[in-house]
Amino acid sequence: MSTPASNDRVINFGAGPSALPLPVLEQSQEGLLNFEHTGIGIAEISHRSPEFTAFLAQVEANIRAQLAVPPTHAILFTQGGGSAQFAAVVLNMLARYKLLHPERAGADTPLDYVVTGSWSKKAAEEARRLTLGGHARVHVAADARAHSADGKTFDTIPPRSAYTFSADPALVYYCENETVDGVEFSHEEGAPTAFPFDLLNPSGEPKLLPLVADYSSSFMCRPIPRLAEHAVIYAGAQKNIGPAGVTVLIVRQDCLVDVDAAARLGALPVPTMFSWKTLADSKSLYNTPSVLSIYVTGLVLERMKALGGPQYYEELNRKKALKVYAAVNDGQEKGVFKKKVKDGSESWMNVVFEVLGEGAEKRFLDGAKERGMAGLKGHRSVGGIRISLYNAITEEQADKIVEYMNWFVAEELKNKQ
Amino acid sequence: MSTPASNDRVINFGAGPSALPLPVLEQSQEGLLNFEHTGIGIAEISHRSPEFTAFLAQVEANIRAQLAVPPTHAILFTQGGGSAQFAAVVLNMLARYKLLHPERAGADTPLDYVVTGSWSKKAAEEARRLTLGGHARVHVAADARAHSADGKTFDTIPPRSAYTFSADPALVYYCENETVDGVEFSHEEGAPTAFPFDLLNPSGEPKLLPLVADYSSSFMCRPIPRLAEHAVIYAGAQKNIGPAGVTVLIVRQDCLVDVDAAARLGALPVPTMFSWKTLADSKSLYNTPSVLSIYVTGLVLERMKALGGPQYYEELNRKKALKVYAAVNDGQEKGVFKKKVKDGSESWMNVVFEVLGEGAEKRFLDGAKERGMAGLKGHRSVGGIRISLYNAITEEQADKIVEYMNWFVAEELKNKQ
Ligand SMILES: Cc1ncc(COP(=O)(O)O)c(C=O)c1O
Ligand SMILES: Cc1ncc(COP(=O)(O)O)c(C=O)c1O
Repeated sequence: MSTPASNDRVINFGAGPSALPLPVLEQSQEGLLNFEHTGIGIAEISHRSPEFTAFLAQVEANIRAQLAVPPTHAILFTQGGGSAQFAAVVLNMLARYKLLHPERAGADTPLDYVVTGSWSKKAAEEARRLTLGGHARVHVAADARAHSADGKTFDTIPPRSAYTFSADPALVYYCENETVDGVEFSHEEGAPTAFPFDLLNPSGEPKLLPLVADYSSSFMCRPIPRLAEHAVIYAGAQKNIGPAGVTVLIVRQDCLVDVDAAARLGALPVPTMFSWKTLADSKSLYNTPSVLSIYVTGLVLERMKALGGPQYYEELNRKKALKVYAAVNDGQEKGVFKKKVKDGSESWMNVVFEVLGEGAEKRFLDGAKERGMAGLKGHRSVGGIRISLYNAITEEQADKIVEYMNWFVAEELKNKQ
Repeated sequence: MSTPASNDRVINFGAGPSALPLPVLEQSQEGLLNFEHTGIGIAEISHRSPEFTAFLAQVEANIRAQLAVPPTHAILFTQGGGSAQFAAVVLNMLARYKLLHPERAGADTPLDYVVTGSWSKKAAEEARRLTLGGHARVHVAADARAHSADGKTFDTIPPRSAYTFSADPALVYYCENETVDGVEFSHEEGAPTAFPFDLLNPSGEPKLLPLVADYSSSFMCRPIPRLAEHAVIYAGAQKNIGPAGVTVLIVRQDCLVDVDAAARLGALPVPTMFSWKTLADSKSLYNTPSVLSIYVTGLVLERMKALGGPQYYEELNRKKALKVYAAVNDGQEKGVFKKKVKDGSESWMNVVFEVLGEGAEKRFLDGAKERGMAGLKGHRSVGGIRISLYNAITEEQADKIVEYMNWFVAEELKNKQ
């Protein structure tokens, strides 16, 4: 099915919600009226119907297979986005800690945050808010700003020497890809800007690390390094795999804790909707989930599997990023662009840079718009340009923005002469 | 646009997610590929784009106009469904109470719950869980089971004499329509089964009552009685007005409180995503909302306005309910059906009854299925039959089930002879 509307579509480089594959949208059109021959549209069907529960199980299986999630970890679906998990990680991990160490005081309960950009900073702030009554102590295990040129910008992953992890924290938090700042941990094991897994457990004894990762903007753009060593990995769907409204959680079994038992020992009470154990016990159907968003996500994952999964996208995303960064670097050499992130810390998903010169940013955005390219404005907190290259952006679409960037640089140089 | 799929649709009497108007689904199909000529699908567009923020403002305006929501109340949109609000009402209302009465202990902080069915019972349990550390005391202001024939069934609205409200509670909670049990407060002012607004404030002095209402399964099926006297009214969209994934809140301004200030005084901390004030300050865009679900909801509301709003649906829903209850009563007189709810407490939205006799329930469901009618099984906790008659069910569709019920009763009698 191809409707006239599909011809008018622009290329959407937005940071989220963001582009979805056209074939998936076309399939979703059918599902809206009739989900899998039930005679009922997907937005109307009971979440407890055999057809929907089978679909949901398939979505889970699809994530499990493609990311090679081991049986030690549950895969859960919830609502509320990454922002809800900022709170949920604190509450669930503090409940877990209380059950492990009922005697420890809040002052002896460190929450370690690695702060590399706006989102991890926000997550740490949520932890501070929730524990202001003294239930824990937020410890910034590294702050990337200390390692930037001006001491206040998020433009780099901190050097290995920067990390000061606590001995026995209730959680260690990091954000794999900082969507606003365009900073990302390196994908290469052992690279200086890779996440320092080895520093978390210097003794090397086998240990269930309380490691929490926000993968909101890099989920399934490639395989997840050291997935099994994480306590929790979470992501809102709305960048790489679906519409907003569904959050995916990968939670190690020991983090599915009885939050009421912990509360009786003095831990902070946990809203039922935030309890990972409740979600797991109900197979993510404790209450009515965002059925429509889950459906579209399921179709994206099905297509992803057919294409070759995260390995396929890793290749594709590497190519797209290399091309776009080449154009940024070229523009920088010619004095038209200014890269905002240090070498080795660049995000594959969100390429951020500035367009130099009076009115130049507006010229860049206007020209892109004329050529059918949208969503290029940087986050309102930092400005500049942001090109998001999530999974649904094709190589041809990346080529199109590169072509435009090159043309723009030449044009600016011409006009300067 | 009408696709072949639309011809295969069954009549969906499910309790939620539930039927949506076909014209809205067809319109949504277009929006999936191209939202309001942006060239970007609605599931892909930035929630901060001018097009989407204008759409959201329109959804709000539409609810405000149709329900005549006064300027004293904000209209907010969030995720997590009714279940998330079970916790949010406790946390926000306790924060408000702490700011009003910083000196009061938990034992002097009553949370009044009117328990009329499974959902209000569940809400009261959530309040108990969250306050088990002693932050408040749950007081059951009335329990409908005490007024049922067997002392343990939810089949009636309690008599006026049953209510024992606290003098100065942090909240008074009720569920307007109990989706599982088919029990609803009367729509008629002064009826013995109407909500006893007058008992809340015996002194009659002007007072901002902390009255909280769960309207999940009756939102916008008719005008809301005494809306302005409520502190909060909330509803998941997935019964009358849209797909799951969006929750609508109507919150009086004095309940938009600084939850951090309250926490510093000793109130329970509130996850940012649960803070109504945060939602209001950000115009419901604190984080990425469920854009797709909001879109479909907006289209439903637009259509609703054109048809005549809640007044139109009140008439329609009254007619549908009268017809279906007439068929239930007739079947009951003939010994085939058994009504589960006492006179005067019947829900317009969820008609529950039993089909008497060996294998009869299965015969009823199978026959309905053969005739293209689905979603009739009662909630798994109570069994029986449930016919949900939300706004999207047309009078013709109600006629169809009535016709079937009458046929079924005659058939059963024939076979008994
Ligand atoms: C890395 C990251 N974490 C968290 C969030 C917050 O997600 P949400 O808007 O779904 O709450 C975002 C949103 O863009 C993000 O990019
Ligand atoms: C009256 C009522 N309240 C609350 C809920 C819970 O809603 P949700 O599933 O959106 O959490 C429901 C669900 O059916 C309901 O009918």
